[in-house]
Amino acid sequence: MDERIIEAVDLFQEVMFYGTERVIRAVDNPLWNEYSPEQIQTLKLISKEEKITSSRLALLQSVHKSAISSRIKKLLQKDLIRIVQTEDRREKLLELTEAGKEVLEQSDKVLTDYIGKLLSDQVEDEEIEQFLIIFRKLKEIIKMDGV
Amino acid sequence: MDERIIEAVDLFQEVMFYGTERVIRAVDNPLWNEYSPEQIQTLKLISKEEKITSSRLALLQSVHKSAISSRIKKLLQKDLIRIVQTEDRREKLLELTEAGKEVLEQSDKVLTDYIGKLLSDQVEDEEIEQFLIIFRKLKEIIKMDGV
Repeated sequence: MDERIIEAVDLFQEVMFYGTERVIRAVDNPLWNEYSPEQIQTLKLISKEEKITSSRLALLQSVHKSAISSRIKKLLQKDLIRIVQTEDRREKLLELTEAGKEVLEQSDKVLTDYIGKLLSDQVEDEEIEQFLIIFRKLKEIIKMDGV
Repeated sequence: MDERIIEAVDLFQEVMFYGTERVIRAVDNPLWNEYSPEQIQTLKLISKEEKITSSRLALLQSVHKSAISSRIKKLLQKDLIRIVQTEDRREKLLELTEAGKEVLEQSDKVLTDYIGKLLSDQVEDEEIEQFLIIFRKLKEIIKMDGV
Protein backbone atom coordinates (compact mmCIF):
# COMPACT_ATOMS: atom_id res chain seq x y z
CA MET A 1 0.00 0.00 0.00
CA ASP A 2 2.81 2.44 0.88
CA GLU A 3 4.03 3.23 -2.60
CA ARG A 4 0.52 3.95 -3.71
CA ILE A 5 -0.20 6.19 -0.73
CA ILE A 6 2.93 8.18 -1.56
CA GLU A 7 1.77 8.56 -5.15
CA ALA A 8 -1.78 9.44 -4.05
CA VAL A 9 -0.61 12.20 -1.68
CA ASP A 10 1.73 13.51 -4.32
CA LEU A 11 -0.94 13.59 -7.01
CA PHE A 12 -3.41 15.28 -4.68
CA GLN A 13 -0.87 18.03 -3.95
CA GLU A 14 -0.02 18.49 -7.63
CA VAL A 15 -3.67 18.79 -8.63
CA MET A 16 -4.16 21.27 -5.77
CA PHE A 17 -1.18 23.49 -6.68
CA TYR A 18 -1.29 23.35 -10.45
CA GLY A 19 -5.07 23.21 -10.65
CA THR A 20 -5.36 26.48 -8.72
CA GLU A 21 -2.68 28.07 -10.89
CA ARG A 22 -4.38 26.90 -14.05
CA VAL A 23 -7.76 28.30 -13.04
CA ILE A 24 -6.28 31.66 -12.04
CA ARG A 25 -4.29 31.89 -15.25
CA ALA A 26 -7.10 30.75 -17.53
CA VAL A 27 -10.07 32.59 -16.12
CA ASP A 28 -10.06 36.31 -16.64
CA ASN A 29 -12.76 37.47 -14.29
CA PRO A 30 -13.05 41.01 -12.87
CA LEU A 31 -13.76 39.41 -9.49
CA TRP A 32 -10.20 38.17 -9.32
CA ASN A 33 -8.66 41.55 -9.89
CA GLU A 34 -10.55 42.79 -6.91
CA TYR A 35 -10.08 39.86 -4.54
CA SER A 36 -6.97 37.71 -4.16
CA PRO A 37 -7.20 33.91 -4.24
CA GLU A 38 -6.31 33.83 -0.56
CA GLN A 39 -9.16 36.23 0.25
CA ILE A 40 -11.61 34.07 -1.68
CA GLN A 41 -10.26 31.00 0.13
CA THR A 42 -10.82 32.74 3.47
CA LEU A 43 -14.42 33.56 2.49
CA LYS A 44 -14.94 29.91 1.52
CA LEU A 45 -13.75 28.68 4.90
CA ILE A 46 -15.84 31.15 6.85
CA SER A 47 -18.82 30.05 4.78
CA LYS A 48 -18.15 26.37 5.49
CA GLU A 49 -17.86 26.99 9.23
CA GLU A 50 -20.63 29.63 9.30
CA LYS A 51 -19.03 31.27 12.35
CA ILE A 52 -15.33 30.94 13.02
CA THR A 53 -12.60 32.41 15.24
CA SER A 54 -9.50 33.91 13.66
CA SER A 55 -7.24 31.35 15.31
CA ARG A 56 -9.21 28.47 13.81
CA LEU A 57 -9.07 30.23 10.45
CA ALA A 58 -5.27 30.45 10.76
CA LEU A 59 -5.12 26.74 11.55
CA LEU A 60 -7.30 25.77 8.59
CA GLN A 61 -5.31 27.92 6.17
CA SER A 62 -1.99 26.76 7.63
CA VAL A 63 -0.74 30.29 8.17
CA HIS A 64 0.39 32.35 11.12
CA LYS A 65 -2.03 34.44 13.11
CA SER A 66 -0.38 37.64 11.86
CA ALA A 67 -1.12 36.71 8.23
CA ILE A 68 -4.72 35.93 9.12
CA SER A 69 -5.12 39.26 10.94
CA SER A 70 -4.20 41.17 7.82
CA ARG A 71 -6.55 39.09 5.63
CA ILE A 72 -9.39 39.62 8.10
CA LYS A 73 -8.72 43.35 8.20
CA LYS A 74 -9.00 43.59 4.41
CA LEU A 75 -12.20 41.55 4.30
CA LEU A 76 -13.72 43.70 7.06
CA GLN A 77 -12.78 46.87 5.14
CA LYS A 78 -14.47 45.50 2.04
CA ASP A 79 -17.57 44.65 4.10
CA LEU A 80 -17.40 41.00 3.07
CA ILE A 81 -17.29 39.72 6.65
CA ARG A 82 -18.41 40.99 10.04
CA ILE A 83 -17.61 40.32 13.67
CA VAL A 84 -20.35 38.61 15.66
CA GLN A 85 -20.61 39.69 19.27
CA THR A 86 -20.80 36.74 21.62
CA GLU A 87 -21.52 36.56 25.33
CA ASP A 88 -17.91 35.65 25.96
CA ARG A 89 -16.18 38.93 25.20
CA ARG A 90 -12.79 37.33 24.75
CA GLU A 91 -14.04 35.31 21.82
CA LYS A 92 -14.62 37.06 18.53
CA LEU A 93 -16.44 35.14 15.82
CA LEU A 94 -16.46 36.04 12.15
CA GLU A 95 -19.23 35.47 9.64
CA LEU A 96 -19.97 36.44 6.02
CA THR A 97 -22.06 39.48 5.19
CA GLU A 98 -24.59 39.35 2.34
CA ALA A 99 -21.96 40.98 0.11
CA GLY A 100 -19.44 38.32 1.13
CA LYS A 101 -21.88 35.53 0.34
CA GLU A 102 -22.49 37.07 -3.07
CA VAL A 103 -18.80 37.37 -3.92
CA LEU A 104 -18.26 33.76 -2.90
CA GLU A 105 -21.24 32.57 -4.91
CA GLN A 106 -19.96 34.33 -8.04
CA SER A 107 -16.46 33.01 -7.52
CA ASP A 108 -17.74 29.45 -6.99
CA LYS A 109 -19.72 29.71 -10.19
CA VAL A 110 -16.72 30.90 -12.22
CA LEU A 111 -14.63 28.10 -10.74
CA THR A 112 -17.09 25.27 -11.37
CA ASP A 113 -18.02 26.56 -14.85
CA TYR A 114 -14.36 26.48 -15.83
CA ILE A 115 -13.68 23.08 -14.27
CA GLY A 116 -16.85 21.70 -15.84
CA LYS A 117 -15.70 22.91 -19.26
CA LEU A 118 -12.19 21.60 -18.73
CA LEU A 119 -13.38 18.13 -17.75
CA SER A 120 -16.49 17.67 -19.88
CA ASP A 121 -14.84 16.17 -22.96
CA GLN A 122 -12.13 14.31 -21.13
CA VAL A 123 -13.67 12.67 -18.10
CA GLU A 124 -16.35 9.99 -18.20
CA ASP A 125 -19.48 10.35 -16.13
CA GLU A 126 -18.50 7.16 -14.38
CA GLU A 127 -15.16 8.65 -13.32
CA ILE A 128 -16.87 11.66 -11.77
CA GLU A 129 -19.13 9.21 -9.94
CA GLN A 130 -16.08 7.34 -8.60
CA PHE A 131 -14.41 10.60 -7.59
CA LEU A 132 -17.51 11.54 -5.59
CA ILE A 133 -17.71 8.13 -3.90
CA ILE A 134 -14.04 8.24 -2.87
CA PHE A 135 -14.13 11.85 -1.69
CA ARG A 136 -17.35 11.44 0.29
CA LYS A 137 -15.61 8.60 2.07
CA LEU A 138 -12.38 10.57 2.61
CA LYS A 139 -14.40 13.41 4.11
CA GLU A 140 -16.06 11.00 6.54
CA ILE A 141 -12.71 9.49 7.53
CA ILE A 142 -11.19 12.91 8.17
CA LYS A 143 -14.09 13.88 10.38
CA MET A 144 -13.85 10.75 12.51
CA ASP A 145 -11.85 10.66 15.72
CA GLY A 146 -8.94 8.42 16.54
CA VAL A 147 -5.58 7.54 14.96
CA MET B 1 -22.92 17.08 -14.89
CA ASP B 2 -23.04 20.51 -13.21
CA GLU B 3 -24.37 19.45 -9.84
CA ARG B 4 -21.74 16.76 -9.59
CA ILE B 5 -18.92 19.10 -10.55
CA ILE B 6 -20.04 21.48 -7.81
CA GLU B 7 -20.03 18.63 -5.31
CA ALA B 8 -16.65 17.38 -6.55
CA VAL B 9 -14.97 20.79 -6.22
CA ASP B 10 -16.52 21.24 -2.82
CA LEU B 11 -15.37 17.83 -1.57
CA PHE B 12 -11.87 18.39 -2.92
CA GLN B 13 -11.63 21.67 -1.00
CA GLU B 14 -12.99 20.13 2.19
CA VAL B 15 -10.52 17.26 2.07
CA MET B 16 -7.74 19.78 1.40
CA PHE B 17 -8.64 22.11 4.30
CA TYR B 18 -9.74 19.62 6.93
CA GLY B 19 -7.23 16.95 5.91
CA THR B 20 -4.34 19.35 6.46
CA GLU B 21 -5.80 20.44 9.78
CA ARG B 22 -6.28 16.84 10.87
CA VAL B 23 -2.70 15.86 10.06
CA ILE B 24 -1.26 18.89 11.83
CA ARG B 25 -3.43 18.29 14.89
CA ALA B 26 -2.85 14.53 15.02
CA VAL B 27 0.84 14.23 14.29
CA ASP B 28 3.10 15.49 17.01
CA ASN B 29 6.44 15.68 15.24
CA PRO B 30 9.36 17.89 16.34
CA LEU B 31 9.79 18.87 12.69
CA TRP B 32 6.52 20.77 12.83
CA ASN B 33 7.49 22.84 15.80
CA GLU B 34 10.49 24.01 13.85
CA TYR B 35 8.91 24.56 10.43
CA SER B 36 5.44 25.92 9.74
CA PRO B 37 3.08 24.11 7.34
CA GLU B 38 3.47 26.97 4.88
CA GLN B 39 7.27 26.64 4.96
CA ILE B 40 7.02 22.90 4.29
CA GLN B 41 4.58 23.61 1.46
CA THR B 42 7.06 26.08 -0.05
CA LEU B 43 9.83 23.46 0.13
CA LYS B 44 7.53 20.98 -1.59
CA LEU B 45 6.85 23.33 -4.46
CA ILE B 46 10.51 24.24 -4.95
CA SER B 47 11.27 20.53 -5.00
CA LYS B 48 8.60 19.86 -7.62
CA GLU B 49 9.85 22.65 -9.86
CA GLU B 50 13.55 22.02 -9.06
CA LYS B 51 14.37 25.66 -9.77
CA ILE B 52 11.74 28.34 -9.38
CA THR B 53 11.42 32.14 -9.29
CA SER B 54 9.81 33.82 -6.31
CA SER B 55 7.02 35.25 -8.47
CA ARG B 56 6.07 31.79 -9.75
CA LEU B 57 6.17 30.53 -6.17
CA ALA B 58 3.76 33.30 -5.17
CA LEU B 59 1.43 32.31 -8.01
CA LEU B 60 1.50 28.62 -7.10
CA GLN B 61 0.82 29.31 -3.44
CA SER B 62 -1.86 31.89 -4.25
CA VAL B 63 -0.27 34.55 -2.05
CA HIS B 64 1.12 38.01 -2.57
CA LYS B 65 4.76 38.58 -3.41
CA SER B 66 5.33 40.22 -0.04
CA ALA B 67 4.22 37.07 1.78
CA ILE B 68 6.48 34.95 -0.38
CA SER B 69 9.46 37.23 0.27
CA SER B 70 9.17 36.71 3.99
CA ARG B 71 8.85 32.92 3.59
CA ILE B 72 11.89 32.83 1.32
CA LYS B 73 13.89 34.92 3.76
CA LYS B 74 13.14 32.47 6.58
CA LEU B 75 14.04 29.44 4.46
CA LEU B 76 17.30 31.08 3.37
CA GLN B 77 18.16 31.85 7.00
CA LYS B 78 17.55 28.21 7.91
CA ASP B 79 19.75 27.12 4.99
CA LEU B 80 16.96 25.04 3.51
CA ILE B 81 17.07 26.81 0.15
CA ARG B 82 19.66 28.76 -1.83
CA ILE B 83 19.69 31.27 -4.66
CA VAL B 84 21.05 29.98 -7.96
CA GLN B 85 22.97 32.54 -9.96
CA THR B 86 21.85 32.65 -13.58
CA GLU B 87 23.28 34.45 -16.57
CA ASP B 88 20.34 36.79 -16.55
CA ARG B 89 21.05 38.83 -13.44
CA ARG B 90 17.51 40.08 -13.15
CA GLU B 91 16.23 36.57 -12.65
CA LYS B 92 16.81 34.86 -9.33
CA LEU B 93 16.09 31.17 -9.13
CA LEU B 94 15.64 29.23 -5.91
CA GLU B 95 16.50 25.61 -5.25
CA LEU B 96 16.60 23.27 -2.24
CA THR B 97 19.83 22.68 -0.32
CA GLU B 98 20.70 19.19 0.91
CA ALA B 99 19.30 20.20 4.32
CA GLY B 100 16.10 21.35 2.63
CA LYS B 101 15.74 18.07 0.78
CA GLU B 102 16.20 16.19 4.04
CA VAL B 103 13.56 18.20 5.92
CA LEU B 104 11.12 17.66 3.07
CA GLU B 105 11.84 13.95 2.93
CA GLN B 106 11.21 13.58 6.66
CA SER B 107 8.05 15.63 6.48
CA ASP B 108 6.76 13.62 3.50
CA LYS B 109 7.40 10.42 5.41
CA VAL B 110 5.52 11.60 8.49
CA LEU B 111 2.64 12.70 6.28
CA THR B 112 2.32 9.50 4.25
CA ASP B 113 2.81 7.28 7.31
CA TYR B 114 -0.07 9.02 9.02
CA ILE B 115 -2.33 9.00 5.98
CA GLY B 116 -1.47 5.36 5.34
CA LYS B 117 -2.45 4.47 8.91
CA LEU B 118 -5.62 6.56 8.71
CA LEU B 119 -6.79 4.91 5.50
CA SER B 120 -5.53 1.36 5.85
CA ASP B 121 -8.54 -0.12 7.62
CA GLN B 122 -11.13 2.00 5.91
CA VAL B 123 -10.26 2.20 2.26
CA GLU B 124 -10.19 -0.76 -0.11
CA ASP B 125 -7.16 -1.37 -2.31
CA GLU B 126 -9.44 -0.99 -5.28
CA GLU B 127 -10.49 2.49 -4.17
CA ILE B 128 -6.86 3.61 -3.91
CA GLU B 129 -6.37 2.25 -7.41
CA GLN B 130 -9.34 4.27 -8.67
CA PHE B 131 -8.10 7.37 -6.89
CA LEU B 132 -4.73 7.02 -8.65
CA ILE B 133 -6.34 6.50 -12.06
CA ILE B 134 -8.54 9.57 -11.68
CA PHE B 135 -5.77 11.79 -10.33
CA ARG B 136 -3.22 10.75 -12.94
CA LYS B 137 -5.79 11.78 -15.50
CA LEU B 138 -6.60 15.07 -13.73
CA LYS B 139 -2.89 15.90 -13.62
CA GLU B 140 -2.61 15.32 -17.37
CA ILE B 141 -5.66 17.48 -18.07
CA ILE B 142 -4.30 20.33 -15.95
CA LYS B 143 -0.99 20.23 -17.78
CA MET B 144 -2.59 20.37 -21.22
CA ASP B 145 -3.13 23.66 -23.02
CA GLY B 146 -6.41 25.08 -24.19
CA VAL B 147 -9.80 25.95 -22.67
